[in-house]
Parts: sequence; C-alpha cells; structure tokens
Amino acid sequence: MAERLSAEECRQALGGLPGWSEVQGRDAIGKIFVFRDFNEAFGFMTRAALVAEKMDHHPEWRNVYKTVEVVLSTHDAGGVTTRDIALAKAMNAIAG
Amino acid sequence: MAERLSAEECRQALGGLPGWSEVQGRDAIGKIFVFRDFNEAFGFMTRAALVAEKMDHHPEWRNVYKTVEVVLSTHDAGGVTTRDIALAKAMNAIAG
Repeated sequence: MAERLSAEECRQALGGLPGWSEVQGRDAIGKIFVFRDFNEAFGFMTRAALVAEKMDHHPEWRNVYKTVEVVLSTHDAGGVTTRDIALAKAMNAIAG
Repeated sequence: MAERLSAEECRQALGGLPGWSEVQGRDAIGKIFVFRDFNEAFGFMTRAALVAEKMDHHPEWRNVYKTVEVVLSTHDAGGVTTRDIALAKAMNAIAG
C-alpha cells in the first residue's frame, strides 16, 4: 500500500506539478483545469478516467461546462500518497 | 429561449422524474446517481455527456468513484426550464 507523504514530501512533489496545490482543510491536492469548451473538458475527463481506472486510483472531480475541478487523496492512507502524485502528473500530461 | 418553470410547474415535472428533487438554496434540480463501480459511473457520464452536448445544455456534476451527483439549471433563464427536465429524463433513461 502507498504510504502517506509527509508535509515536506508533499510540498516537494507539488513543486513539480504546475497548477496543483494543497486543498484547504483536507489532506488532499487539487487543481482546477479550464478548457475551451465542454467537448475539450469532457475529452480530458475521458482520457483521465481511462488512466485512473488502469491505476485503480480514482479522482474526486466536478465538471461545469469547460471547467474540471479535481481533488486527489488516497482514502486508504488517509492523505496524499505517490499514487496521487502519479495521477496528477498523468492529468497534467493529458491536459497538455 | 426556454422559459423558467414556475414552482408549481417544476414540482409537477419532478413528479415524473424518480430520484430528482429541488436543490436546497438554489433554483435547480438535482439527483445523486449511485452505480456499481467507477466503470459504470463513468459509462453513464459518457453517455450523458454526448446527450448534453447534442442538446447544447450541460450539467454541473461531481463524480466520486461510483457516485455521480448532478445539478441541472438553465443559466440564461436563472432557474429550471424544460431543457433541464429533458436532460434529467434522458439521464434517468441512460441510468436505466
């Protein structure tokens, strides 16, 4: 099982993840992706969903038209782990 | 443009929409769909996204693993219109 990152490890990881930050009041990381339209936003979600399913690690996410708000945390570990960092990296790569 | 439904019209429409209800504090309707797993939840979202894009009327929705929380409202009309009712019906049909 992935181990929870320390606050320092989490901050270091976020340094390499443009747009991601700690979520206020939760042991989680988050990012708001903004696209051109719904087509592009849902296209991103579809690609990210396939990656998430393959990793067996799923996001909490909210979509309103061209915006996708993502929160990542590892439930079993009670916080942020390397699995969240890996999914965040994959999402950044998909968003391009 | 679709006209905003009166409170009475909205209640009548909700009578024919199992699982949907008025959203507290907003002029909107909502439903929480619960599926077996992420595969089924995101499959529902994908089918609903195609319908929404075709209708040019999009949901606000949040997905956490097997749960999809949907809120529908017509921004231009400042409330619930027949377009929301139509999308809600389509989502119920997709969820089966």
